[in-house]
Parts: sequence; C-alpha cells; structure tokens
Amino acid sequence: MARRGLLLILSSPSGAGKSTLSKRLMAWDPTIRFSVSATTRPPRPGEVDGRDYYFLSREAFANHVQRGEMLEYAEVFGNGYGSPKAPVIEALEAGRDVLFDVDWQGAQQIRNSSLGRDVLSIFILPPSIEELERRLRFRGQDSDEVIRDRMRKSRDEISHWAEYDYVLVNEDLQETEEKLKRIVSATRLRRETQPTLVDHVRELNKEFDAR
Amino acid sequence: MARRGLLLILSSPSGAGKSTLSKRLMAWDPTIRFSVSATTRPPRPGEVDGRDYYFLSREAFANHVQRGEMLEYAEVFGNGYGSPKAPVIEALEAGRDVLFDVDWQGAQQIRNSSLGRDVLSIFILPPSIEELERRLRFRGQDSDEVIRDRMRKSRDEISHWAEYDYVLVNEDLQETEEKLKRIVSATRLRRETQPTLVDHVRELNKEFDAR
Repeated sequence: MARRGLLLILSSPSGAGKSTLSKRLMAWDPTIRFSVSATTRPPRPGEVDGRDYYFLSREAFANHVQRGEMLEYAEVFGNGYGSPKAPVIEALEAGRDVLFDVDWQGAQQIRNSSLGRDVLSIFILPPSIEELERRLRFRGQDSDEVIRDRMRKSRDEISHWAEYDYVLVNEDLQETEEKLKRIVSATRLRRETQPTLVDHVRELNKEFDAR
Repeated sequence: MARRGLLLILSSPSGAGKSTLSKRLMAWDPTIRFSVSATTRPPRPGEVDGRDYYFLSREAFANHVQRGEMLEYAEVFGNGYGSPKAPVIEALEAGRDVLFDVDWQGAQQIRNSSLGRDVLSIFILPPSIEELERRLRFRGQDSDEVIRDRMRKSRDEISHWAEYDYVLVNEDLQETEEKLKRIVSATRLRRETQPTLVDHVRELNKEFDAR
C-alpha cells in the first residue's frame, strides 16, 4: 500500500549518539532522505558542502529565510542553522521519509509547519552527563570553552525531552539502534500515513452494496 | 525501565482474523493479559466459562453494570457484553498490558474511560467482503440468518475504522501478525508509558548542578 512519507525528527544533546544513529538508520533503509541543514558557520575539518551541511554566507542564508524557503531555522552560538524546504517536499511527494537532525527549536518549528502532519519525533538521552562530556571530549576537536558552551546547550536541549513522541536512553548503541528501527517501521503503519485505506474501505462498501 | 501497562484494543468485523491474532499475540508475549468479557448470551459448543467468556445471567450482568464494575459494556443482538474492570486494574498495576477483543462501541468506551490513558487501538480489515463471508461460513456454526445479521453488523463495525491508531488489512495472516507485534513492541517505548524517564532526567540535572 502506498503511504505518505514521515518527517522523522531526531534530537539530542550533542554527544548522545544522534549522528551515529542517523547514519545507521539510513544504512538500514536507504530510501530515507536525510535533510541536510544549511548553516552560516564555517566547515569543520572533513565536512563536505552539500553532504554535512550547505555552507552559506550570512546574506544567502537570510535571503532563503526571507523567501520562506526554510522549513525551520534558528540562531545557535551566533550562527544560523536551517532546513531547506524544497528537498523535503520533493521526498515526501515521492512517499519517502525525511530525517531531520535538529534541536528542540527545529523540532518545534517542524511540528508546527505546513508540512508537519506526519511527524515522528524521537529524543536521545545520554545515560549520564559524565558520559556525555566524555564523548564530547573524545572527539578532540573542541576547546574547553566550546565544550563548556556545548554542555550548557545540552542542559537546555535535555529540558525539552517531554515534547517528543519517544525518548530513548542511549545506554547501549546497538540496542538503541534496534529500538529506533522498530519505532520507525511501526509508525509507518499508522492509519494517518496510509491514504489508500480509505479506498480499500470504499471497495468493501461497494461489495456490501452489491450483495 | 519500568513502564506502564497498555490497553491494547483489537477490533474487527467477525471473521477478519481478530481471535487468531489475539491468540498469537498472547503466545508471543504471555505477560499480556487477555480481558475476558462477560456476556449474557449462552455458551457456544466448546466455550469455557472464565476462559472464553464469563457467562452471566441478565440479572448478574445488570448488577455489575450498576455497581460500575464494567469498563465498557453494550447490547449486541439482544445480549449484554462487557469488560470487567477489576482484572484490568490489577494487570495495569503490575505493569502488564491488557488485550481487549471488543467492537467499536467497546473501543470508544475504553478510550474515554478513567483507565484510557495508554490505549493502543488496532482495527483489522478483511481483504474483501467475499472473503469475510467465506470465513464466517467456514466456521459452520451459524445459520444463514445469523450470518446475515453478522454481515450487517460487520458493515457497521467497518464504518468505524478511522477511529483506530492502526488499521491493518489482513491479507496474509503471518504478515499481519508480524506487523501487530511490531506495533505493540514499538508502542511500549512511547514516552508517556515510561514514567521512569522523568527520574532519569532529574538525575541528569543533578549531575549538571554538581559540575
């Protein structure tokens, strides 16, 4: 049965495993389209334009926002972040799910957007703050000050956990990944995402009429 | 993590496979408690009191209803049917899910009851009406007139499909069973059914405070 694509929102404080889980979800089902964010911040080492982010000038970013071409956007640490609308619409129209790696502000905007009809939102919590900081430091790419900022942002992010449909404590990555897949594949079966059901019931009623 | 028990509602026109699916769901997870209905109709051959139904006199049934001891009840084909409340409360308090094999009237009442906080409702549709009637006749226990009545009731039942969280067209029993299990196991992960999440977040915040 044909179904409508879902807006899959994955949020978590940085270091809780969100990026790894996103990648694994897309490896599991390559039809899922990842929503590449646009940002005004400079690329980090190894980041590729168009794959990790669309790197835009402040002016280009502001223009996109002004023309209503961003599904959601926000300012974080002095940089603009946003999700371009066009690729999302294109994927949904093809019946594909779109995965968003966004913070609570993005999640709120997507839920309340014109496209926010079939949203599945999942929040990933770390097992502990000690572990969260350990993972951040392990990346080894940020200064102490940046890490302090991130930890502050993490606390703010975590405070929004109750706005999500599902909240998973990422104790064991394998297990969290398994749960995530289970949630996505069950949610795809929800009535609202199955527009052809109404056709099926119409056929059943025709059969009743013909008896 | 401890979780709250779910009220699992399975509805379908008779002959769509609901009973078989209920049995398979409970074989898959024996912690699921089946809500045995009470009824005033006489037992059919092979039906066991307390297992298939609680067979009650009209008077006893009316007394239970009057004392508010039924979670839901309705009159169908001149007989009373209802779900006794006590075993449901007992199971939910033990963190167990309770499975209800009820019609749309029962489903509506359970959703709107004092216990209807964590409801997962699933509707099973037949692939066709022809197939539905074939399955009814195959049982071989009902007269033509009873079958006509059941088919009329089926049409009424099917008209309520859109009130359910999930609607599955039971084309292939194996496949429908698999989907059902996937839906139940994912729904068990929903935020609202995980009361210990709030404790986990409290612990995380304590850790932030202590830094």
